[in-house]
Amino acid sequence: MENFKNLLEIIKKRKSIRGYLNKEVEKEKIDYILEAFRLAPSARNLQPWKVIIVDDKTLINKLVIACKNQTFIGEAPIVLVACAIEKEAYGTMGGYFNSYPVDIGIAFEHLILAATEQDLGTCWIGAFYENEVKKILGVPEDVRVVALTPLGYPNDSGRDRPRKPIKEIISHNKY
Amino acid sequence: MENFKNLLEIIKKRKSIRGYLNKEVEKEKIDYILEAFRLAPSARNLQPWKVIIVDDKTLINKLVIACKNQTFIGEAPIVLVACAIEKEAYGTMGGYFNSYPVDIGIAFEHLILAATEQDLGTCWIGAFYENEVKKILGVPEDVRVVALTPLGYPNDSGRDRPRKPIKEIISHNKY
Repeated sequence: MENFKNLLEIIKKRKSIRGYLNKEVEKEKIDYILEAFRLAPSARNLQPWKVIIVDDKTLINKLVIACKNQTFIGEAPIVLVACAIEKEAYGTMGGYFNSYPVDIGIAFEHLILAATEQDLGTCWIGAFYENEVKKILGVPEDVRVVALTPLGYPNDSGRDRPRKPIKEIISHNKY
Repeated sequence: MENFKNLLEIIKKRKSIRGYLNKEVEKEKIDYILEAFRLAPSARNLQPWKVIIVDDKTLINKLVIACKNQTFIGEAPIVLVACAIEKEAYGTMGGYFNSYPVDIGIAFEHLILAATEQDLGTCWIGAFYENEVKKILGVPEDVRVVALTPLGYPNDSGRDRPRKPIKEIISHNKY
């Protein structure tokens, strides 16, 4: 973090990286970002999750196809796959919905911000076919694949994407 | 961040805070944490969200009841309510599921980590009755309330909660 003044600087640096160098990621960096995931909060602290670390090139190439041919994913030395064990999650968030997508949102973003801090590139992948990914990685039927990200050194600086002005996304004491 | 060596230190400091001081939160701090939310990534950058900032004591007391009488929420000067506009979110994440709970998980955790960095306390609230919260705050029928948090200066140091060992939550090239 020596390079970052505060959390907001890390948040601003994080971009969807769609080009990767052919360069290995150091084990210490991988351990660091997995620790950021591991320590995430989850509903009732149930931690209903698992991360699959994919570095086998044949599997990565299959994942590219399952991710609607987003070919840049295949440039990365590693793809991380965030899985949720739905039945182990908190089933009555808000009274009636399952917490697992929120849990994964939190924890995987910890990992992604930690990767950004370590000068690594990532890209939240939501465009994929869950059943195809599950077949490729042997994910059990009752486990959900919520998201993936390539992980590696960026060969692309990412794009600045516009955000809604603050006034559009807040309100005071009523919706 | 002067006080934090790196992101992992902020992550480690974040705990569920269940006691709050009767002390106002500075506007600059509120602006900072909302900015952390605003800049969050979301599926296709759709930003399908809104945060309701509740500081009216009568409303907060009603929210306590809608949150299954978690009375500590009523100690906080502010309650933040994370809403999702389901129909504006990415509807085919993984091929067929709606991204909004993941989107809110990401953005609300940005806010919560930013609050931690600013020495403020928060607590992800998942135990609430969505329809009750919606009635209290006039949230439209087709908008979802995904989570809440009290926000204020801590009067409680929080508990360390155990996490699964890393070996239990990762696997290599297959589930």
